[in-house]
Amino acid sequence: MENIAYYNGKISLMEDMMSPMNERSSYFGDGVYDAMFTVDHVPLQLDDHLRRFYRSAKKIEIDIPMPFEELRAMVLDFCRKIDSPDAMAYVQATRGVGMRGHAYRFAGNTPSLWVWVKPDMLDPMDTSYKAITMEDPPYFHCDIKTINLLPAVIYTQRAEEAGCDETILHRGDRVTEGAHSGLAILKDGVFCTPPADNLILPSITRKHFLTLCDKLGVPTRIAPFTVDELKNADEVMILSTGTHCVGACELDGKPLGGKDPALLDKLQKAYQQWFDEETAK
Amino acid sequence: MENIAYYNGKISLMEDMMSPMNERSSYFGDGVYDAMFTVDHVPLQLDDHLRRFYRSAKKIEIDIPMPFEELRAMVLDFCRKIDSPDAMAYVQATRGVGMRGHAYRFAGNTPSLWVWVKPDMLDPMDTSYKAITMEDPPYFHCDIKTINLLPAVIYTQRAEEAGCDETILHRGDRVTEGAHSGLAILKDGVFCTPPADNLILPSITRKHFLTLCDKLGVPTRIAPFTVDELKNADEVMILSTGTHCVGACELDGKPLGGKDPALLDKLQKAYQQWFDEETAK
Repeated sequence: MENIAYYNGKISLMEDMMSPMNERSSYFGDGVYDAMFTVDHVPLQLDDHLRRFYRSAKKIEIDIPMPFEELRAMVLDFCRKIDSPDAMAYVQATRGVGMRGHAYRFAGNTPSLWVWVKPDMLDPMDTSYKAITMEDPPYFHCDIKTINLLPAVIYTQRAEEAGCDETILHRGDRVTEGAHSGLAILKDGVFCTPPADNLILPSITRKHFLTLCDKLGVPTRIAPFTVDELKNADEVMILSTGTHCVGACELDGKPLGGKDPALLDKLQKAYQQWFDEETAK
Repeated sequence: MENIAYYNGKISLMEDMMSPMNERSSYFGDGVYDAMFTVDHVPLQLDDHLRRFYRSAKKIEIDIPMPFEELRAMVLDFCRKIDSPDAMAYVQATRGVGMRGHAYRFAGNTPSLWVWVKPDMLDPMDTSYKAITMEDPPYFHCDIKTINLLPAVIYTQRAEEAGCDETILHRGDRVTEGAHSGLAILKDGVFCTPPADNLILPSITRKHFLTLCDKLGVPTRIAPFTVDELKNADEVMILSTGTHCVGACELDGKPLGGKDPALLDKLQKAYQQWFDEETAK
């Protein structure tokens, strides 16, 4: 065979293999992988790679749905079956198939296993590479709405396990955003929200609240705030397409906000009114 | 209909929709998305969300394969077609289908478009959320081999555009790893490599070289090194399953290494010998 692919029990050519749209790899990149080179049909350092694969999976709580020895035998078998003696062997485990939702302990969830081997060739070792340098920006794509969402998946799962609805993130002392929401606090009558810089995704609900505040004469302040300022806020607002503007009443098990219900209610009512107008037929 | 999904021209129920295994979402999370709520069959802030969607795509150089107005009409149509008046509408663009490889300007590449609408319900605004806090660790999963690989995709693409083979990453002054390789330098006869902490993926080739050096009596040093130390190294070694241990001869257009070819050659030959033994029948 020219190449060979396995996905959850099916075997075919790589280019013919399909997976469900609702695979969590499609929406979240919710998985781990490893890859080996095969020379003369023998995969190199197979055990090291497979051990790292099982370790990676364990670190994000994916239970690979095949025992080590069985997977090892499958990779060896595939490497022998393909025509090319030089090849790349690839293994991947994802958190399986389900309607899109960040938290991952849903009913019927079974991780998926992907394996393929395709022709590939190593550069000879006396090749010499040209390289460029790049700063690896820790905040590379916070402001771009990409599907590299594994951190958001983990943060949401942790909230759910704590019996909570959202995880509020901070970098050092600076509060940034929710795992899948934007944030604002009300303090002394002012609507305060962090700047939409490279540390946060520009929330559309947040943007709309800034416009609403302007119309209502509620003063706004766009500036970073700290974890302590969050804890001492009069009200904390969770802003997103999926929540609109729900208040938060508890943070890490301690009471939160509840000190300016009148302003919170005024803002929520104004949002609801705009919302009703927008969605009226 | 209960729900409705579109993928590259096909339309079906979400749970029946399939996509190719070789979708770049499967391997790299190489895509962007956006989502809206629909109340009484009307999606809210549709234009704002779609504009952000096209903006996100542009930022990572994905050319969404449908004009704005046409996509807008499709989302509106889907929202009217499903049974539930309250729903979530979702749009996603990925870099399309192809044999796995980081760089993304390959022949025949066409981005993929995903659209779906499914029943969903907003929490009433007077709900109050419980939250937990978590530090958002910028280096969250460098040491786990996940498929959240969009940064590696971008770094590799930049190298390719510069006519180079690899991008060497640094965080501030500290050199960490290649976009898809581990690193070592040779300096004054010592094999130096950064510690396998949370900033780098533990490379199996790097681990094997440490063992080889030990056997050959080549001293090793496991400690962070700076960009200047990299530039002044006697030799720079790119270590990975896909390169083994190729030397680097150029960095950002300037000559690199080449000052201890004897030791580089000795290490490469020892690796090759081990490699030949491992893959012998």
